[in-house]
Amino acid sequence: MFIENALQGSPATTATTATTASTARFRVLWDEIAPIGRDARTGGYLRYALTEPEQRLREWFRAQAERRGMPVTDDGNGNLFARWGDPDAADAVLTGSHFDSVPHGGAYDGPLGIVSAFLAVDELRAAGVAPARPLVVGAFVEEEGGRFGVPCLGSRLLTGALTPERAAGLRDADGVSFAEAFGGQPAGARPDLLAGFGAFVELHVEQGRALVDRDASVAVATAIWPHGRWRLDFTGEPNHAGTTRMADRRDPMLTYAFTVLAANKEARLRGAHATMGRVHAEPNATNAIPARVTGWLDARAAETDTLTGLVEAVHAKAVERARRDGTEVTLAEESATPLVGFDADLGTRLAALLDAPTLPTAAGHDAGVLAGHLPTAMLFVRNPTGVSHSPAETATDADCAAGVAALARVLEELTCA
Amino acid sequence: MFIENALQGSPATTATTATTASTARFRVLWDEIAPIGRDARTGGYLRYALTEPEQRLREWFRAQAERRGMPVTDDGNGNLFARWGDPDAADAVLTGSHFDSVPHGGAYDGPLGIVSAFLAVDELRAAGVAPARPLVVGAFVEEEGGRFGVPCLGSRLLTGALTPERAAGLRDADGVSFAEAFGGQPAGARPDLLAGFGAFVELHVEQGRALVDRDASVAVATAIWPHGRWRLDFTGEPNHAGTTRMADRRDPMLTYAFTVLAANKEARLRGAHATMGRVHAEPNATNAIPARVTGWLDARAAETDTLTGLVEAVHAKAVERARRDGTEVTLAEESATPLVGFDADLGTRLAALLDAPTLPTAAGHDAGVLAGHLPTAMLFVRNPTGVSHSPAETATDADCAAGVAALARVLEELTCA
Repeated sequence: MFIENALQGSPATTATTATTASTARFRVLWDEIAPIGRDARTGGYLRYALTEPEQRLREWFRAQAERRGMPVTDDGNGNLFARWGDPDAADAVLTGSHFDSVPHGGAYDGPLGIVSAFLAVDELRAAGVAPARPLVVGAFVEEEGGRFGVPCLGSRLLTGALTPERAAGLRDADGVSFAEAFGGQPAGARPDLLAGFGAFVELHVEQGRALVDRDASVAVATAIWPHGRWRLDFTGEPNHAGTTRMADRRDPMLTYAFTVLAANKEARLRGAHATMGRVHAEPNATNAIPARVTGWLDARAAETDTLTGLVEAVHAKAVERARRDGTEVTLAEESATPLVGFDADLGTRLAALLDAPTLPTAAGHDAGVLAGHLPTAMLFVRNPTGVSHSPAETATDADCAAGVAALARVLEELTCA
Repeated sequence: MFIENALQGSPATTATTATTASTARFRVLWDEIAPIGRDARTGGYLRYALTEPEQRLREWFRAQAERRGMPVTDDGNGNLFARWGDPDAADAVLTGSHFDSVPHGGAYDGPLGIVSAFLAVDELRAAGVAPARPLVVGAFVEEEGGRFGVPCLGSRLLTGALTPERAAGLRDADGVSFAEAFGGQPAGARPDLLAGFGAFVELHVEQGRALVDRDASVAVATAIWPHGRWRLDFTGEPNHAGTTRMADRRDPMLTYAFTVLAANKEARLRGAHATMGRVHAEPNATNAIPARVTGWLDARAAETDTLTGLVEAVHAKAVERARRDGTEVTLAEESATPLVGFDADLGTRLAALLDAPTLPTAAGHDAGVLAGHLPTAMLFVRNPTGVSHSPAETATDADCAAGVAALARVLEELTCA
């Protein structure tokens, strides 16, 4: 791999901080896509994969690539790659992110990485940098899983983590299959394409406030926390809300409620994250003690042991409370993703290059999928609200320009050495 | 009113306890309707008003009335009245209940009161009782509100508590209006009909276990508890479940969960009933801290002050917890029904006549609607499970026969004295 050599001599021709001019350049390009898919009522974005707004963003991608003389390849899975450099050279450096949003999501999650990538190309060219290796800007499809339910769909197809048959059959809320939306079955694993990449760097808005606390614009990610989803089914005895004496009840909503509070407390005790944001009650009637309440636990922690301990503790608390409530509870793992460590050498070197702090993240990304196949790093840009997957997600233009400068510096380092 | 005189001299010709023969007679008649509208999968009943199963039950009602030579009147609102006695005489004694069920409800809630009424007529005739006043068996439409959303629809129309225009426009889950299901606009208030009734006695399966504790087959109801429904809207800050630090969260699900537990605790402390069986979260996604959680509080208590105090305490606890969670909570009353006291003299006299305990109830009934217009009483029949609005709702044949005997005794008392 070229990475060992890449940082030996740094050309250091690009800036590492934002200027008034680079901030203005960011705003100009950003404004081109800001209106696309924005809901006027909430200010949030509805940019589901392969729907009209996301298709417009993909056309914008092709136009940006063409404007820069970068030929675009579609990998047959809906992922787009715009290339600067020799079409046959190996060890290309890939950067980019995704366009799609969660329902009523923010503007930055995804698109910031693509806009920053094109601006970084501009910075490198303006500085007269002549890369020794190709530089590729990528746009992955359906990263959020907001339409077809599987996050990182595009990168999973590209790497073979998801079969094209399974992807083709996934359906959105209206019953439209991925194959129908995509116009056929996707190509699936492309080891030929992957072999041409020597590294992947994804720039992303931070989905928390660690950079606010550290008073820094940009950080380098070290790892994606192990995380997963567990379904908890609480069953009791359906009964009349008016006439059933409190002492005679077997009300699963009580066990659910206790478990929600227990998950929060156990996560805080462990420095982990636990969320129970989804609930389903049956029959869900005002005058009925429910027969069943289903809750979902989203849990994440820096270490696998912490995560396992957290889930076990929540389950134990739920079982203990169920005994008191005369209810029953079962726990089922719906998905679990182990710790994804980004390339340690690459991360350390980029942090030193940028003089930036390092952070773990608790969210999944296409970078997490690609990390199993090639040296991968992520850059985070400060988010003043710390809010993500919501219209309140934000970043200042100056921080975004600092992100572009950092990305340009990293790409120069990786393509030129 | 005739009630003051009715209990002066008791003919006492009917039995007050079940016999093997009367238990067998109950089972024979009960088996005629047991299969109608029963869901084979759950064993629960789907007897929504004016649907095919409930229409079959209404045909069965007409056939039973004809078999006994009792002409049937429809009040123009869907309520049926079968009469034994002089068509022009006043001070008729009305008894009966309803056929319709909640979704997957039990067999007894409603139909027991109608089947028992016809059997009570048989008992009176077999004992050679010759009523001095007419005896009317009634079947009210849409008592549960399970199809068109308004409980006691039929009795509310009859008494003028609901206008025919409003009833006509109510729609079921499939969009069918009451007017369409009924075949036109209902007649509305019928003061002429009401004026002909001197009393109403509704027999009903108990929706709790008080009679199990008291080791009695039958009780006389004293009142319907004041009760109501309140909506609690909890709002927070939607955010990413993975990346948002626990300390930065404003999670309305936590406030909701705490309030569920507080409502239960406050109700127990006051000897009242509180249930939060219905919940709605937005966006209700596993990986999202909710923007909003809505919960509904069903609360009931023996006294209005207790109910008011309960709701205020739950609200105060929710507000206190919201402050800790950084969320907000609002409380809105969706409906409230004050205390309905049944006729105190009538209740006391019937309890003495039957040597039966007296009980309040926390459920609404057609008797609660009619109580504002004529002396009204209710009889409850023991329910071993205490479960209601569920396939587990039950009563033994012997207790049902005891209920028939008690009803016959009461009707004899009220029609003959």
